[in-house]
Amino acid sequence: MDAIRITKTVNLELQNYLESGNFSQVVVLVDENTKRDCYPLIEFQEHTIIEIRSGELNKNITTCSQIWDALTRAQCDRNALLINLGGGVIGDLGGFCARTYKRGIRFVNIPTTLLAQVDASVGGKLGIDFKGFKNHIGLFSKPDSVIIDPIFLESLPREELISGFAEVIKHNLIADAEGWKRLAKTEFQNIDWFKTISHSVKIKRDITSADFKESGQRKILNLGHTIVHALESYYLPTETSLLHGEAVALGIICESFMSLKRDMLSIKEFDEIHTFIKKHFPIRSIPESAFPKILELMQQDKKNKEGMILSVLLKSIGKAEWDQEITMEEVIASLKYLNQT
Amino acid sequence: MDAIRITKTVNLELQNYLESGNFSQVVVLVDENTKRDCYPLIEFQEHTIIEIRSGELNKNITTCSQIWDALTRAQCDRNALLINLGGGVIGDLGGFCARTYKRGIRFVNIPTTLLAQVDASVGGKLGIDFKGFKNHIGLFSKPDSVIIDPIFLESLPREELISGFAEVIKHNLIADAEGWKRLAKTEFQNIDWFKTISHSVKIKRDITSADFKESGQRKILNLGHTIVHALESYYLPTETSLLHGEAVALGIICESFMSLKRDMLSIKEFDEIHTFIKKHFPIRSIPESAFPKILELMQQDKKNKEGMILSVLLKSIGKAEWDQEITMEEVIASLKYLNQT
Repeated sequence: MDAIRITKTVNLELQNYLESGNFSQVVVLVDENTKRDCYPLIEFQEHTIIEIRSGELNKNITTCSQIWDALTRAQCDRNALLINLGGGVIGDLGGFCARTYKRGIRFVNIPTTLLAQVDASVGGKLGIDFKGFKNHIGLFSKPDSVIIDPIFLESLPREELISGFAEVIKHNLIADAEGWKRLAKTEFQNIDWFKTISHSVKIKRDITSADFKESGQRKILNLGHTIVHALESYYLPTETSLLHGEAVALGIICESFMSLKRDMLSIKEFDEIHTFIKKHFPIRSIPESAFPKILELMQQDKKNKEGMILSVLLKSIGKAEWDQEITMEEVIASLKYLNQT
Repeated sequence: MDAIRITKTVNLELQNYLESGNFSQVVVLVDENTKRDCYPLIEFQEHTIIEIRSGELNKNITTCSQIWDALTRAQCDRNALLINLGGGVIGDLGGFCARTYKRGIRFVNIPTTLLAQVDASVGGKLGIDFKGFKNHIGLFSKPDSVIIDPIFLESLPREELISGFAEVIKHNLIADAEGWKRLAKTEFQNIDWFKTISHSVKIKRDITSADFKESGQRKILNLGHTIVHALESYYLPTETSLLHGEAVALGIICESFMSLKRDMLSIKEFDEIHTFIKKHFPIRSIPESAFPKILELMQQDKKNKEGMILSVLLKSIGKAEWDQEITMEEVIASLKYLNQT
């Protein structure tokens, strides 16, 4: 379980995995983008393909029903394998469908976005959105295998690459001060993705292995995310879509700002973080009229307990603290700070 | 986990459990029947109630959405508890909703039918029907606690009691020849339900503990069920509903007949089984025009592998063999035998 391979030969790794598994059938889940850009790069043997529509808006129970239905029509039994070829939506949704079809079949993730490679495919969070709440319905269950090849990043739109980069930043901020220094002095176009992905996956894997069901330490991975999920839920039904990484970048600024205001984080490190993020991400201002709705959405966050808003704050670069109870006033102050930036 | 209490003081057991759990909220799931007959027997403290419509026809993803929605509106966090008060549908469906809401909250089953007490609440099979297939979507996950009190049987319609009795018969047939002898000589109205439930639960629990995910031995619990799920799926959309136990009784006759025809089971034991079942259950004849549909439904059974129909056959009373590949001809012959009975 949880065999993660970072490789430059995805076909070889997949071949080895398929030979080891004694599968009755192989089914590949794609969306219109990964069908066009990624599917042709893989040498599949006999298989069935299921295509769903891309995007967070389709990460819902209706799409699950389509996938369950397609698995049924393909007469998949319990020894079938589902290969999720795509970004975070494909992995989270496909994984959830696999683990619930006939009470569970095996699945492999081949993540094709940077975000999915460094984040979504590691740690076993599966799920779908429900009534406007992100990942509201789901499971903790690790893929049977994850095969990560940077080759897929070549066809990835630049904004998607940047989006995934926010998680790389986060991993260094919460757990590796040395890694942060290296990252901060490397120009974006010179990044060695193979090494960077390996480093990020190692951080996430170490943290999630120690606390799989998120009862403690794992929560530091939510740096920035208390606000992120609310922002994403808020923008989901609107025309102005917000990429996950863009939201994470905003969230990191907000939570760093709260850390600064509580005298946890030094002004020097706060400036470093803020400057680095502004260099890579557009800073969107959030209308004050949206603040109440965003606060309400934050209340529904899965990580909260007994109505308190719990967040992650930074003590220093490389060191985060979880379960920090934050007030609505602190949230509002940080959102206002964003708008002045 | 998997703490099963068979008790005559359900309120005391529940009280103890609630005090031990540090729950942020308590939610009770009922249907119109258990709300009327069972809910008044329980002394709940502060709680939210969710009512769904009774019956297998509502064991579907639409009802799941209603439950997830109700949990969300009640602002349940991850420390909430769901109490499933009802029969198999409530337990299977409620358990599935609990384990997927916010990636999993705790749940307790208080089974109120004999069928749920001796069967559905033990062994951790959760799930819903999908597009006409029984339990097609689901999970393996044990309740955090099961509290069984025979008091609920007092309000149970007689046909429901008989329905659960089929599983009691099955447990003895597959695993306890001595138990079968005792059962066969006791008149139905004289049965001591507390003892009978305890005995059945012990058999099921021993088998499921040894093989939770049904890769081997657990399959003997499917005696009768290869045909049962097909029959139930066939009758589900029709007007003539078929109780689970009634279907199990028919299935046991069919599989005993196949065992006899293969010279596995003796004619003496076959007659014993057949006579006992006929004494307690109505034997419905199945129109031959339905055979193809029933065979097709059997093909989709979760327990099958690579297109073969796998069944459980009896070697003798008290001894079953799983993964027996059966032919369509054998199935048809056994259905025809039923019709002549």
